[in-house]
Amino acid sequence: MFKTIEDFKAELAGFPSADAAARQAAALRNAGLTKPAGALGRLEDLALWYASWRGSDRPVLDRVQIAIFAGSHGVAARGVSAYPPEVTAQMVGNFRAGGAAINQLAQVAGARLTVHAADLDRPTGDIAEAAAMSEADLCAALQSGWDAVDPEADLFVAGEMGIGNTTVAAALAAAFYGGGAGTWVGRGTGVDDPGLARKAAAVEAALDTHAAAIEAGDPVEILRCLGGREVAAMTGAYARARVLRIPVILDGFISCAAASVLSQAVWGGLDHAIAGHCSAEAAHLRLLDALKMEPLLRLGLRLGEGSGAAAAVPILRAAVACHSGMASFGEAGVSDRD
Amino acid sequence: MFKTIEDFKAELAGFPSADAAARQAAALRNAGLTKPAGALGRLEDLALWYASWRGSDRPVLDRVQIAIFAGSHGVAARGVSAYPPEVTAQMVGNFRAGGAAINQLAQVAGARLTVHAADLDRPTGDIAEAAAMSEADLCAALQSGWDAVDPEADLFVAGEMGIGNTTVAAALAAAFYGGGAGTWVGRGTGVDDPGLARKAAAVEAALDTHAAAIEAGDPVEILRCLGGREVAAMTGAYARARVLRIPVILDGFISCAAASVLSQAVWGGLDHAIAGHCSAEAAHLRLLDALKMEPLLRLGLRLGEGSGAAAAVPILRAAVACHSGMASFGEAGVSDRD
Repeated sequence: MFKTIEDFKAELAGFPSADAAARQAAALRNAGLTKPAGALGRLEDLALWYASWRGSDRPVLDRVQIAIFAGSHGVAARGVSAYPPEVTAQMVGNFRAGGAAINQLAQVAGARLTVHAADLDRPTGDIAEAAAMSEADLCAALQSGWDAVDPEADLFVAGEMGIGNTTVAAALAAAFYGGGAGTWVGRGTGVDDPGLARKAAAVEAALDTHAAAIEAGDPVEILRCLGGREVAAMTGAYARARVLRIPVILDGFISCAAASVLSQAVWGGLDHAIAGHCSAEAAHLRLLDALKMEPLLRLGLRLGEGSGAAAAVPILRAAVACHSGMASFGEAGVSDRD
Repeated sequence: MFKTIEDFKAELAGFPSADAAARQAAALRNAGLTKPAGALGRLEDLALWYASWRGSDRPVLDRVQIAIFAGSHGVAARGVSAYPPEVTAQMVGNFRAGGAAINQLAQVAGARLTVHAADLDRPTGDIAEAAAMSEADLCAALQSGWDAVDPEADLFVAGEMGIGNTTVAAALAAAFYGGGAGTWVGRGTGVDDPGLARKAAAVEAALDTHAAAIEAGDPVEILRCLGGREVAAMTGAYARARVLRIPVILDGFISCAAASVLSQAVWGGLDHAIAGHCSAEAAHLRLLDALKMEPLLRLGLRLGEGSGAAAAVPILRAAVACHSGMASFGEAGVSDRD
């Protein structure tokens, strides 16, 4: 149980690394498969990365978990979104009833979907003028994400729902990577021009209000000031996945902002994660560049819910299936170029 | 049965169009789904395109067929490939035994794989100095592709295997789109510099040998002169899919060269097809540009076998699943922005 920020930081400090020997053994296996060297392109890189985290030269990818986290944001009262705050709880109902996009995408991905909503009737503090969360609130949110990860999963995806959370993500990105509010604010679910101006003003005010914490540079404390419950839950979940050596596919702008906390806190803190999709929210591409990640897909989604990551799950499945299922030249009696 | 080239052309002339009413009804459905307008990006376009070909505002995508065509090429004797010609038959054995990349990818895509190899011990004519096929050979190859398509399929993918077939595809692309051998020749499975020079010389000789047919501009006759059995089979299969209104995902350079015959012969002749993947073979991007197609994936594959298209199948599945499975705002009790 995380009682203080320091408890969480202790887990970050103990992050395990990938299994270099498994990667090397997987590379050897890859070199003998019935295809020209390198002909599966990025699928080969994905397979080796996956093998290194699963600690096997011939890994399986059976159990996929998609966890959706929902949260309510004080800053939403400033009119930063095209939708009213009550949509968050309504969409949680839709996730539970099976009617949302992520329900369909999870089915196509062969994934189990879990839904985690906490304190939707108790919005976080308005980041423009106060900390989003107390230390206790932050710890509870980190813990909820930590506990949400299925230790038996082979692959973990997190998604989110929270009216106002692209505002929060923009504030986090600006705090971590600089550039000011204008660099990181976008239309989210489709806010109009006046709403976009209110959003930029809210992020600017938040950066001003929390200038001392940003200057001090503790990423977990910055998450407390500028984040939200579902954002912190995603950070906690990504950390737990790392501890369990469960590979992660990141989703859109909010997912990557939550993940940035690990990248800021630990050298190589996101080595267990890849980017599934580059969203139509322009700031997402900037954030992926900052994280030095090349997304698997570019389909122009801007929905959240884990949708972009879910769409990318079959690509990783394809990579692992080829790697672990193909015959070698010797087994198949096929002539190699040598 | 195609007895003459004219029999095949008669089918091309009778190509059906997409169902505009189904597309309009699908667009209406899409507008009411529980997501911000346009938030599923390209998945929404894919769903409407698929609906228009399946003639339903709420289509299903259950039965996927991947058909692999194999052929032997006379031009392979010129040393244009990194692999010896006998690899074609060996790989057909590997497809049938389940050990190739496409077997694993078909499983991930939930597709039935069929393998079609004809006359592997009887290579086509060397295009550098003669026609690849007689009219009877061409008709048999077109027919084999035509007959290979499962009329009950919801989606059709063709793949190929044929040592030397990137040479043939380069010649076809040059014949259809100009630019000369250098524009369309690449390393294929990984040929070295001397092999690449032999390949360019073979394509140049082929363009010279068949200059009169190219000048005359009949795409089916050009296919007879410069194609190959598996290439013509793919052309025949794509035509049959069109007649059956079965949507198609195109694969790599050879697949797109085979498909180009339809595009050259009929205005909108590839409207039932989308590009699954842009291959690492540089000429493939040029060919996609000529076809005005934007690939779903860019993963650097350069394998053939239908691998890039197979990897893209789950993206289309995701699009159709969201479109046909999601709840509307009214059904889910979610507030829309209005």
